[in-house]
Amino acid sequence: MKQSKPTTGLCRYTDDQVFYRDKNLVEDLLDGSHGFVEVMIAHILNRDLTEHEIRVFNTILITMMEHGLTPSSIAARSVYMSAPENLQGAIAAGLLAVGSQFVGTIENNARLLARLVPLEGADREREAEAIVAEHRSRRTHIPGYGHHLHRPDDPRSIRLLELGEESQGPRHYLNSLKLLGEVIDRSFGRHMTINATGACAALMGDMDVPPEVMRGIAVIARSAGLVAHISEELERPSGRYIWEVVSDAIPFEV
Amino acid sequence: MKQSKPTTGLCRYTDDQVFYRDKNLVEDLLDGSHGFVEVMIAHILNRDLTEHEIRVFNTILITMMEHGLTPSSIAARSVYMSAPENLQGAIAAGLLAVGSQFVGTIENNARLLARLVPLEGADREREAEAIVAEHRSRRTHIPGYGHHLHRPDDPRSIRLLELGEESQGPRHYLNSLKLLGEVIDRSFGRHMTINATGACAALMGDMDVPPEVMRGIAVIARSAGLVAHISEELERPSGRYIWEVVSDAIPFEV
Amino acid sequence: MKQSKPTTGLCRYTDDQVFYRDKNLVEDLLDGSHGFVEVMIAHILNRDLTEHEIRVFNTILITMMEHGLTPSSIAARSVYMSAPENLQGAIAAGLLAVGSQFVGTIENNARLLARLVPLEGADREREAEAIVAEHRSRRTHIPGYGHHLHRPDDPRSIRLLELGEESQGPRHYLNSLKLLGEVIDRSFGRHMTINATGACAALMGDMDVPPEVMRGIAVIARSAGLVAHISEELERPSGRYIWEVVSDAIPFEV
Amino acid sequence: MKQSKPTTGLCRYTDDQVFYRDKNLVEDLLDGSHGFVEVMIAHILNRDLTEHEIRVFNTILITMMEHGLTPSSIAARSVYMSAPENLQGAIAAGLLAVGSQFVGTIENNARLLARLVPLEGADREREAEAIVAEHRSRRTHIPGYGHHLHRPDDPRSIRLLELGEESQGPRHYLNSLKLLGEVIDRSFGRHMTINATGACAALMGDMDVPPEVMRGIAVIARSAGLVAHISEELERPSGRYIWEVVSDAIPFEV
Repeated sequence: MKQSKPTTGLCRYTDDQVFYRDKNLVEDLLDGSHGFVEVMIAHILNRDLTEHEIRVFNTILITMMEHGLTPSSIAARSVYMSAPENLQGAIAAGLLAVGSQFVGTIENNARLLARLVPLEGADREREAEAIVAEHRSRRTHIPGYGHHLHRPDDPRSIRLLELGEESQGPRHYLNSLKLLGEVIDRSFGRHMTINATGACAALMGDMDVPPEVMRGIAVIARSAGLVAHISEELERPSGRYIWEVVSDAIPFEV
Repeated sequence: MKQSKPTTGLCRYTDDQVFYRDKNLVEDLLDGSHGFVEVMIAHILNRDLTEHEIRVFNTILITMMEHGLTPSSIAARSVYMSAPENLQGAIAAGLLAVGSQFVGTIENNARLLARLVPLEGADREREAEAIVAEHRSRRTHIPGYGHHLHRPDDPRSIRLLELGEESQGPRHYLNSLKLLGEVIDRSFGRHMTINATGACAALMGDMDVPPEVMRGIAVIARSAGLVAHISEELERPSGRYIWEVVSDAIPFEV
Repeated sequence: MKQSKPTTGLCRYTDDQVFYRDKNLVEDLLDGSHGFVEVMIAHILNRDLTEHEIRVFNTILITMMEHGLTPSSIAARSVYMSAPENLQGAIAAGLLAVGSQFVGTIENNARLLARLVPLEGADREREAEAIVAEHRSRRTHIPGYGHHLHRPDDPRSIRLLELGEESQGPRHYLNSLKLLGEVIDRSFGRHMTINATGACAALMGDMDVPPEVMRGIAVIARSAGLVAHISEELERPSGRYIWEVVSDAIPFEV
Repeated sequence: MKQSKPTTGLCRYTDDQVFYRDKNLVEDLLDGSHGFVEVMIAHILNRDLTEHEIRVFNTILITMMEHGLTPSSIAARSVYMSAPENLQGAIAAGLLAVGSQFVGTIENNARLLARLVPLEGADREREAEAIVAEHRSRRTHIPGYGHHLHRPDDPRSIRLLELGEESQGPRHYLNSLKLLGEVIDRSFGRHMTINATGACAALMGDMDVPPEVMRGIAVIARSAGLVAHISEELERPSGRYIWEVVSDAIPFEV
């Protein structure tokens, strides 16, 4: 199990200084002119960000932060009730739900769009048709499209796409997302909304965020949302009630 | 196990709208004038924030985000190597390390300061002396003071305290932190730095953040730092090397 | 952060042999005469076990394995629904609920009993009375006693205590548990059952299991129970229904 | 998000009785004639087990329990050092490493074997050749075969296969595992060991354990091993040393 010796470029210390990558934490980053979102994304992506990119990431993080009483927050509240001395365990339990079925679909959408991005014109359209045909033949959901509640359109996606249109940078992912949406609508004969996860995937794709890291961005946003759920538990505890309600709702049957 | 019926004030939906508390997500929060930090802290604390408070939270989050190769990031990298298909599991593993020994000390510091805050003058000083005496008699570390590396002063704390001095709001926690530091220095006959965790606890105490929620803020900041560690693993994988190095360093002995 | 060089006594390998502590895995432990429970407890406690001890641990593990639809299994089922590709995440989420409020009380009970164990006769009784008085004055529950459902007696405890009576070894914890129960009944003027957690704590105390490790034994037992819950999800999925039921039961209120 | 009303068959209570499925816990399962392994596997699989099957599961669980200082136990020890008040968090962190790269390969191996099991004679052999060809063309490892240390043969697999040969039940998975091993040896022109994970997958396949549940069995076994690691930390703490060693081994480089 040999491996060449790895290094880390994230952080180093001296007696009286701390560095995040090549920046002096106190002098360069805590001077009041940089926000947490800018610093963390630059830290994760290892590059500086434009003003527009900072706005886009702020918008994505706000959008992905909160979804109400979902499996993720139900898990967090249940664990918190059992181990309130250990808040990080409740948050960790909730984050473990950022998997293939919900927020984690962002990666799958990004991988689909990545098939369209290098193509142009009729080639891109043919590939979009192939993607739709594949999913229809397997009778599976196309990640990034459709929402069980928001019809005809997810209001968050409209706002996110507007923001993408304002970008001075490349829009290959954004255009591919819209094209695929058109092909879907045509194929199904009805309009299917681009959902918020799909819009976030396209915006991040155009900023060169690797698909794996997109799920990480979702995890950060959800961690904030889950802290709000635990904070609400302090004032309006629901854990015991959830237990009771679920217990009553699922009867015993051999 | 009866409990009065709880409610939630965090999120609600209609067909074409999403609300975070009493705010329309798209119209009120995604209009480009609000950042993620402002929105998430307002969501967690259920109140609006001043410009100065937003700056303070940004500074705290940046400060707590990254600490290099610590037990938390070692755990995250080790889990990522074993289950790369499951990034949220690696982040969750790393967050489980936000416990009593490191970042979680923020709560203990806040609880100590809360003993001083309601007192004034000589009463406050006597209570500070009592706190020091208690810890010395139990030979335990006083949370919020001392750092294994940064001497004589933690550069982050100096910056954080400066920021606190600029506040127009109450400074009871901040003043208590400084007073307790003076009593510690006098008692031990040498200067012990206020560490970054102590400074963050005082700043948040003066903004009425409940001690339990302080640990939650630390968890959010760390989740961003851990995503940077996993992002670095994609380019410079270290998990297998960590395994090898640890295995070699800890020999078998019956 | 210096520390003397640690070692490990758990496992070593050669090309064609594996050792667990000083035992050859294949020749000594997989010869068909040793069960998993015996091997794992010997591995954890680093000592051989008597036949009676093996029976006691089997009984404890069976007793702690399953508790139906609790916060722990609700968390596991919720996470499984969101990330079915990642079964270990669902189990981990459920185990995070083994905290201070339920199974983790085993440690607190063991620590109470440890105050009685070194005493005899009237001294032990006086200390038991002191323990009851402390908890009554703080209006807190005495860990190991009482059950919200099983009255007058928890049927599992009766069986566990019978098993303890059959032991040829020391019974200081068992006798302390019964004495404390008598003092509680007298003080409250009514019978309060010794619960299963209390009985397990006493049986393990008499086998010299450290209190911290008792929680670990509970974690192992629960991991088996949680796998049964996930296995049931494969045939009778409940995660989406739990989401729906909880969402409907907790209305929005500002 | 509608779903037909689910039920649970795992556990029910009355005032003075507890049932696991259709068995009375105290009278039927805690009568001293049933061990934890038998009870938990019957609970998970929802069927009774033969004596031979109980022996096989005991052997599998012992085999998968312990692997020394691996990413899983390094994560658990690192988290334990940071949050010792929260043992379940350390175990959960370690279990999160039961993913695609190590123990979780058991599922992938079972799915490969499931392609051979329905076939016979030359058809089975042709499918085995197809499996080998697929993996060679993708230059990926065939799960269940090869071991970085144990050559020419993994001693655990030899013992596990012997046990499988003693079965009176079906051996379709076992025979498929051996056949695929022969085809691999022939294709590569050298002997590649059947590893312990492969042998466990085949034994469980022949007992009708669903592939998803196999990973669950591995999780239970690992939870026991991880408790032994934490128990060792109580006597020979290594967490701080691991931190130091890893920190020293991975230098900063921009």
